[in-house]
Amino acid sequence: MQIGLLGLGKMGANMARRLSRGGANVLVWNRSADVATQLAQAESNVTACPDMAAMVAQMASPRVLWLMLPAGAATEAAMDQLADLLAPGDVIVNGANAFYKDSERHAAEMAAKGLRFMDAGVSGGVWGLANGYALMVGGEADTVALVTPFIKILAPGPATGWLHCGPVGSGHFVKMVHNGIEYGMMQALGEGLALIKGKTEYGMDVAAISEMWRHGSVVRSWLLDLTAEFLQQDQTLEAIAPFVPDSGEGRWTVLESVEQGTPAPVMTLALMMRFASQGKHDYTDKLIAMMRKGFGGHGVKGDV
Amino acid sequence: MQIGLLGLGKMGANMARRLSRGGANVLVWNRSADVATQLAQAESNVTACPDMAAMVAQMASPRVLWLMLPAGAATEAAMDQLADLLAPGDVIVNGANAFYKDSERHAAEMAAKGLRFMDAGVSGGVWGLANGYALMVGGEADTVALVTPFIKILAPGPATGWLHCGPVGSGHFVKMVHNGIEYGMMQALGEGLALIKGKTEYGMDVAAISEMWRHGSVVRSWLLDLTAEFLQQDQTLEAIAPFVPDSGEGRWTVLESVEQGTPAPVMTLALMMRFASQGKHDYTDKLIAMMRKGFGGHGVKGDV
Amino acid sequence: MQIGLLGLGKMGANMARRLSRGGANVLVWNRSADVATQLAQAESNVTACPDMAAMVAQMASPRVLWLMLPAGAATEAAMDQLADLLAPGDVIVNGANAFYKDSERHAAEMAAKGLRFMDAGVSGGVWGLANGYALMVGGEADTVALVTPFIKILAPGPATGWLHCGPVGSGHFVKMVHNGIEYGMMQALGEGLALIKGKTEYGMDVAAISEMWRHGSVVRSWLLDLTAEFLQQDQTLEAIAPFVPDSGEGRWTVLESVEQGTPAPVMTLALMMRFASQGKHDYTDKLIAMMRKGFGGHGVKGDV
Amino acid sequence: MQIGLLGLGKMGANMARRLSRGGANVLVWNRSADVATQLAQAESNVTACPDMAAMVAQMASPRVLWLMLPAGAATEAAMDQLADLLAPGDVIVNGANAFYKDSERHAAEMAAKGLRFMDAGVSGGVWGLANGYALMVGGEADTVALVTPFIKILAPGPATGWLHCGPVGSGHFVKMVHNGIEYGMMQALGEGLALIKGKTEYGMDVAAISEMWRHGSVVRSWLLDLTAEFLQQDQTLEAIAPFVPDSGEGRWTVLESVEQGTPAPVMTLALMMRFASQGKHDYTDKLIAMMRKGFGGHGVKGDV
Repeated sequence: MQIGLLGLGKMGANMARRLSRGGANVLVWNRSADVATQLAQAESNVTACPDMAAMVAQMASPRVLWLMLPAGAATEAAMDQLADLLAPGDVIVNGANAFYKDSERHAAEMAAKGLRFMDAGVSGGVWGLANGYALMVGGEADTVALVTPFIKILAPGPATGWLHCGPVGSGHFVKMVHNGIEYGMMQALGEGLALIKGKTEYGMDVAAISEMWRHGSVVRSWLLDLTAEFLQQDQTLEAIAPFVPDSGEGRWTVLESVEQGTPAPVMTLALMMRFASQGKHDYTDKLIAMMRKGFGGHGVKGDV
Repeated sequence: MQIGLLGLGKMGANMARRLSRGGANVLVWNRSADVATQLAQAESNVTACPDMAAMVAQMASPRVLWLMLPAGAATEAAMDQLADLLAPGDVIVNGANAFYKDSERHAAEMAAKGLRFMDAGVSGGVWGLANGYALMVGGEADTVALVTPFIKILAPGPATGWLHCGPVGSGHFVKMVHNGIEYGMMQALGEGLALIKGKTEYGMDVAAISEMWRHGSVVRSWLLDLTAEFLQQDQTLEAIAPFVPDSGEGRWTVLESVEQGTPAPVMTLALMMRFASQGKHDYTDKLIAMMRKGFGGHGVKGDV
Repeated sequence: MQIGLLGLGKMGANMARRLSRGGANVLVWNRSADVATQLAQAESNVTACPDMAAMVAQMASPRVLWLMLPAGAATEAAMDQLADLLAPGDVIVNGANAFYKDSERHAAEMAAKGLRFMDAGVSGGVWGLANGYALMVGGEADTVALVTPFIKILAPGPATGWLHCGPVGSGHFVKMVHNGIEYGMMQALGEGLALIKGKTEYGMDVAAISEMWRHGSVVRSWLLDLTAEFLQQDQTLEAIAPFVPDSGEGRWTVLESVEQGTPAPVMTLALMMRFASQGKHDYTDKLIAMMRKGFGGHGVKGDV
Repeated sequence: MQIGLLGLGKMGANMARRLSRGGANVLVWNRSADVATQLAQAESNVTACPDMAAMVAQMASPRVLWLMLPAGAATEAAMDQLADLLAPGDVIVNGANAFYKDSERHAAEMAAKGLRFMDAGVSGGVWGLANGYALMVGGEADTVALVTPFIKILAPGPATGWLHCGPVGSGHFVKMVHNGIEYGMMQALGEGLALIKGKTEYGMDVAAISEMWRHGSVVRSWLLDLTAEFLQQDQTLEAIAPFVPDSGEGRWTVLESVEQGTPAPVMTLALMMRFASQGKHDYTDKLIAMMRKGFGGHGVKGDV
């Protein structure tokens, strides 16, 4: 039971660990080779490969190659290189985040070379090593069947936390939507706790309130669990910058909403508030400040 | 260990059951007396009272009277009537949803008559009987101390799922915000599943996807648990009207956001989408349809 | 044709000028007396009064007293003081911004003392002196009739730009909604111009584009006129702080939306974006940054 | 001074009229030939062409061909066909709405065949014939120079209401943003008037209020002019369906906001409210109704 895993970032490295501890022989490759070497030294069923050709050479068909590389150039390059090395019927899994339309394209490109492709949305973050990863899988039935033994190790349980969602692309589609929901939930929790903190007359303890909500309330959730945990360390958040990055999935969800014409106002707004936190709403604010000055003679901030 | 509970709706009746099964003697009163009588027959530690006077007469000071009545007239009337019957130091708890500023007023009114007041936000819905209720409590320390034995029975555990949040009003404040978060989370989940259903080419199973997300995903939550459950019965929702009522807490959260100047855009939007589902956006839609006709000569729906 | 005008801020002073130049005898009072004195020296039909009693003494019943004072304490105090000085049938007009429910209360308080009350929403900003003020008037017919000669001078034309909207309160109601619309329009214009500026590859000139839109486009509007004007001076806005204050009307519109259950999502969001520009979304942003760190191991800004 | 105009829909036909009345010789082609024939009979400087070849044959290089065809297949086909007929240096103008990235592609495709391309966003709707069209133009300087004589006829004035915005694509980009602003303004006006109508106690006249705002208020605008006009006919809007179509520009603006990371929350929300008016929010509403039932035992609409 052999799998090749390419890309040992935060997600990939932990997945290699979970796979090897679950009984798989894991061949790993990473752009910086020493990361692979160290992992192989630490984990008994992990073998480091100096390059993709070496990895492929050590595997028997039908091979399963699982990519956890950054979207874009790195993934495209690896897929091209593997296409030249692999034999008909071998499977490439892209487990990194990707726009589902790119996955559809990848599947077509691989199919043209006789290879099989599966897309897998992977959720669970740094906690996945211990708890398992929620896996959202798209592809043809026989392809998914080949990968299933590995999926069962990665998932929270052999029968739970993973799903063959539909045809190629559907795995990344479902993961994309999952992240859109996540954006909305995070924003809702953030707004609520900010209102509690903002009611200064009451002097409330947002850490204790978060912890209390974890038990029996309607809003109990894993995101709340995490929030209660970090608030217990510090609820002032004075040292934290009010800056929220965004990533592809949040953006792709909005594109999908627009393409379908299915409204996703809360997901979209959660994304836009992140843009605003990055200072991207400043020019709009300045324009509005100037309009107020224009019609009302209102000063703008900093006017003497 | 005796408590009077007034109001045996869905929430109140189950709370009486949980209290009595947890060892309290529960005196109950309800506007429709037979509801109280039937509950008393079914539960061993529950006694039905024909009126508030009879309830008060059977209790020893410092009494604890817990209201679970509809907000507004019913609650105000009960509070007035109890104020005449109770003795100094007795405690009135309002466990129904109420605007926190009304709770502040109630406390002041009761204090003027020598009585004590505690506000309790209660979360957990119909599942609270089995799982316990998350309780958010506001009031003075000695008042809360008197009620604590009952709180420990109602909560998910004697030490979990309840919190003395702060002064009078803070219990209902925290419950209000809790519901605002709930609105946002529900909208986010709804939008996401609608996008999955809207991607008809993939023919995905939203019930199976919801179930899968419950294990290991970032969006796992109690609301998702409930959603997975009802989707398993029917995911077409053809028989369900696309109509979402709203209640006070969702509205009050927006008022608080505006009063503080703390933005709660997602909570607010979730409320506004409910208004829209109630047909309250129709006039705006008609106006915009007419504007389009006005400048572009675009037909409006139904034009021949 | 005599009127008393109290409060010579940016709006009040210009209204006194327009009234006097339109043929009215204008008695003015201001908290800082020298503002009144200077205005009286500069305008031929304006007389400064040292206090309210002196103003009232110089007028014949039925008097018309027009308040342009800051909302809150200043207005309440003036109204109380005038109530003691005026004679039955005299009219108090509140032309400053006020929540319409306060105007309903003011009317009831004045009626209890035999006085008449009219609420007037005044729009037009610093341009009103030259162009006239849009006036939205609420009150009983005979009260409005008494004030109409002055309204016709203040308005852009004797028959245009003013309206008796309905009963007491309706003038301020309509002004409130007007400002809510204004918030939405300003935000829409701001967002659009920011997108144009953000498309740096095209090197577009937002000043020239604003100017062009003023002629023949669907978005031509007075706010666009003002915008084109200030952008012509400077379109970098480098010296302007991205900080937008908000005022009562924007907030009251949201309260009204919530009270009616009529969705006003765009107006509300425009208000919330102003709150965010004031730094009031920072705690939410920090919370979300920490949640990301919690589940994904993502660094927060500033992490080493 | 000769121009070929292809596509005689509402916009194209009126533009042909304005061009011919302004002194241009206008060759027209339309898919349904009789529309062209009739226009040629009614307007003295208009000549109908049976096909594109005939049109091109009657023109001298450098020719100016202006397309007002539906986006997509019709435009692509016409461009391909013209490319085979035209001579190097001839100019194709796309004046229909198009995504600016498609215009960039069109320019590249035409350039590969030695042809020149200009994109023109055209605003003004059915009023453009009388008032002129706001024209937003993208392209190389010499190309724009060739088309300028025609632009000056179409625009509200020879020097106003049109602008060479920047390189190819920028004309459609600016038009796209223009429409995004329009969406936001329409939604803001709609929300405001709905609030006034919703305050039934005041019995206000939304037609009269719209008319009054046209003079001296901050929200005066062309969209308000149109609104006041149709409300004067009927303010109940009882016969109008609460259904608002959306078109490409509104959607493209959101895609651009997401691509730039520049927040456009109000524009986006205005689009999403249109989606909702089309019934595309129904599944989300149903899901939320069921969640409420799930946790609170709340009935859904229609439950007995």
